[in-house]
Amino acid sequence: MTSIDTLHDQFRRELVEAGLLFDTGLDGLYARGAEFERILDAVDHLITRDGHAASDLTPAGSGYRLYRFPPVFPRDVYDKTDYIESFPDLTGLVHTFTGSSSDHRALLARRAADESWDHHLTPGDTVMVSSACHPLYGAIPQQLPEGGIAAEVNGYCFRHEPSPDPMRMQAFRMHEFVRIGTPSEAAEFRTAWVGRAQGLLSGLGLEVEAVAANDPFFGRAGKLLANGQLSNNLKTELVVHVYGDDHPADAIASCNLAEDHFGRNFSLTLPDGSTAHSACVGFGLERITLALLSVHGTDPAQWPATVRETLFP
Amino acid sequence: MTSIDTLHDQFRRELVEAGLLFDTGLDGLYARGAEFERILDAVDHLITRDGHAASDLTPAGSGYRLYRFPPVFPRDVYDKTDYIESFPDLTGLVHTFTGSSSDHRALLARRAADESWDHHLTPGDTVMVSSACHPLYGAIPQQLPEGGIAAEVNGYCFRHEPSPDPMRMQAFRMHEFVRIGTPSEAAEFRTAWVGRAQGLLSGLGLEVEAVAANDPFFGRAGKLLANGQLSNNLKTELVVHVYGDDHPADAIASCNLAEDHFGRNFSLTLPDGSTAHSACVGFGLERITLALLSVHGTDPAQWPATVRETLFP
Repeated sequence: MTSIDTLHDQFRRELVEAGLLFDTGLDGLYARGAEFERILDAVDHLITRDGHAASDLTPAGSGYRLYRFPPVFPRDVYDKTDYIESFPDLTGLVHTFTGSSSDHRALLARRAADESWDHHLTPGDTVMVSSACHPLYGAIPQQLPEGGIAAEVNGYCFRHEPSPDPMRMQAFRMHEFVRIGTPSEAAEFRTAWVGRAQGLLSGLGLEVEAVAANDPFFGRAGKLLANGQLSNNLKTELVVHVYGDDHPADAIASCNLAEDHFGRNFSLTLPDGSTAHSACVGFGLERITLALLSVHGTDPAQWPATVRETLFP
Repeated sequence: MTSIDTLHDQFRRELVEAGLLFDTGLDGLYARGAEFERILDAVDHLITRDGHAASDLTPAGSGYRLYRFPPVFPRDVYDKTDYIESFPDLTGLVHTFTGSSSDHRALLARRAADESWDHHLTPGDTVMVSSACHPLYGAIPQQLPEGGIAAEVNGYCFRHEPSPDPMRMQAFRMHEFVRIGTPSEAAEFRTAWVGRAQGLLSGLGLEVEAVAANDPFFGRAGKLLANGQLSNNLKTELVVHVYGDDHPADAIASCNLAEDHFGRNFSLTLPDGSTAHSACVGFGLERITLALLSVHGTDPAQWPATVRETLFP
């Protein structure tokens, strides 16, 4: 059996040789080539089409809206997500220089002497987007309309987890649909999207399985959180065997029930005064693109006709 | 005369009321709405079309390539740009948590007590992209082919400069064309693009002027750099009066001659052994979109027919 490290290395080299990705010198950070982006854009559009065809995205009386967030969001919104409790090691907090002209001279002198100048920087007000939907909960009105809210978000996420596996990038795009409403509206949305996302991905010739997620929560306390996630069946991942059946499968989409977590932390209230529940489905655009390149080959002209027709109609 | 602060506030409110942008709670950081993105995408496509029609993007023998970079890039590439010398205050260095499980408990205890936990984070390997073309110089081969390289880059940039002016965002997208070659190839590219970019933007009904740039270099040493930029005529900005003729104009694109700056710092060498020169033209996608919304109004259905036909053919 070929080792997983060898398979990561082979896949990465194939992608770079085909001009699909370019190395930047850091694990998990790639420039994307034109053909990679053409496929990713097509996947993105397909998700838009399928999403908009789903009637629960336009619930009667609710404000359906698309938001695209920049790759950083306000620190106080990040803080309310409690991400620092679960995934401190994946977090990216932006620091900058706020000193005087003489502080700057001191910084440059240290730099010229090849010494560290990190302590000249100070924490800023922004954090890398941890999950595409996180900025959303801080950007919507706390008093929700009758019927709740259905939203679509799309943007870059950051996870500090350098890896030689192209499937595990430090910066990647997620396209999400989010439902904020009553407990049953949120739960039904999640359930409906498990099947819907499976259909979408199967239509691209990907053999996806729906499995209970097992997120890498940090530290000892994290084990409890992971157990809670599993036993409460809060997150379903759609996984595909990019590196063959002998190796673990990779998630390319996930359907999450957050229950009242964001509702409580962001004081999102339904018209009857109760705390809103939420659910979201997230598609990993780079991961889906890479799964297609892995399963169907690095030349899209050679992909099965049905896949090409679905993606490039 | 209406004060510039009032005009910033009015424009921002108009954009938010029309659902084009959404406030996030931080100055200079906005969620984009669907209609804003539709306009921005159309501007982006127009730049692609015009760019690809320009013959100097496919110089004989050169490798023309499109790259899309994620919003962060390697710290050592950032360092080689010398950006920290000129704009330390705009910089964004990503910090993360690399401690143990007990360090994490200490962090969470401080957070629970409403105390600062910043010192629990450590500097990482990534920096926010300072200019769309900066990651490029670290991603191309140092030995350039005959004819040099022409490249197209497109991605999110970050500048730490919180402002109530919607034209001054902290995170925004730039679409750039870059030419790396002989001194004359670089200089001619810059000159040609001043006229070409003016034509493109005028075609959208924007009254643009080409002016010598006056970048806000940091500190006392920065004054010298700014003087050098002006006296050597290295940067031409295309500006438009978004807030009327009584107030300063805003740059929506710029044409830059870097001479051998990046060539030296990144050891980019032409086949004859000489150091490569470079030039780039950058279009600020959010700024062009905002200029259109300011000049033609916040409802694209009411824009002049020629502008609509150019953008949405």
